[in-house]
Amino acid sequence: MKAVVSVTLKPDVLDPQGEAIRKACGSLGHAAVTGVRQGKLFEVELDAADEAAARKLVEELADKLLANTVIEDYRIERIEA
Amino acid sequence: MKAVVSVTLKPDVLDPQGEAIRKACGSLGHAAVTGVRQGKLFEVELDAADEAAARKLVEELADKLLANTVIEDYRIERIEA
Repeated sequence: MKAVVSVTLKPDVLDPQGEAIRKACGSLGHAAVTGVRQGKLFEVELDAADEAAARKLVEELADKLLANTVIEDYRIERIEA
Repeated sequence: MKAVVSVTLKPDVLDPQGEAIRKACGSLGHAAVTGVRQGKLFEVELDAADEAAARKLVEELADKLLANTVIEDYRIERIEA
């Protein structure tokens, strides 16, 4: 199975990299872009009996390894068979 | 509107960072994890009349700025009002 997990900075945490991208959008003539935040994406291939087991494992990995939950939130975007 | 875009390395491109994470999963006792690939996630806030306009703008940004389409693929994960 493949699980896709996104990890993003919590809303209160400053993101200078995202801000630099927003400015670059403005320089390219896309003033309609009012904000950009950058995060990380993890595609995890795993052996699991079913989707529930996969979700449990991925949540544990995200908590322990993929995200720093002090400053980051994670979200399981999808789990594919 | 908020658009969420993921950028991942093309399947043929090596990903040593993902491989390091896979090994760390193994060290933590999660041998069920057979592969990890790391990518980037962008949350883009933008002014657009409707979802179609937002999608068009985000595709242009992804092509020009967010992804290096020689070695990366992008995917619009979702567009939220």
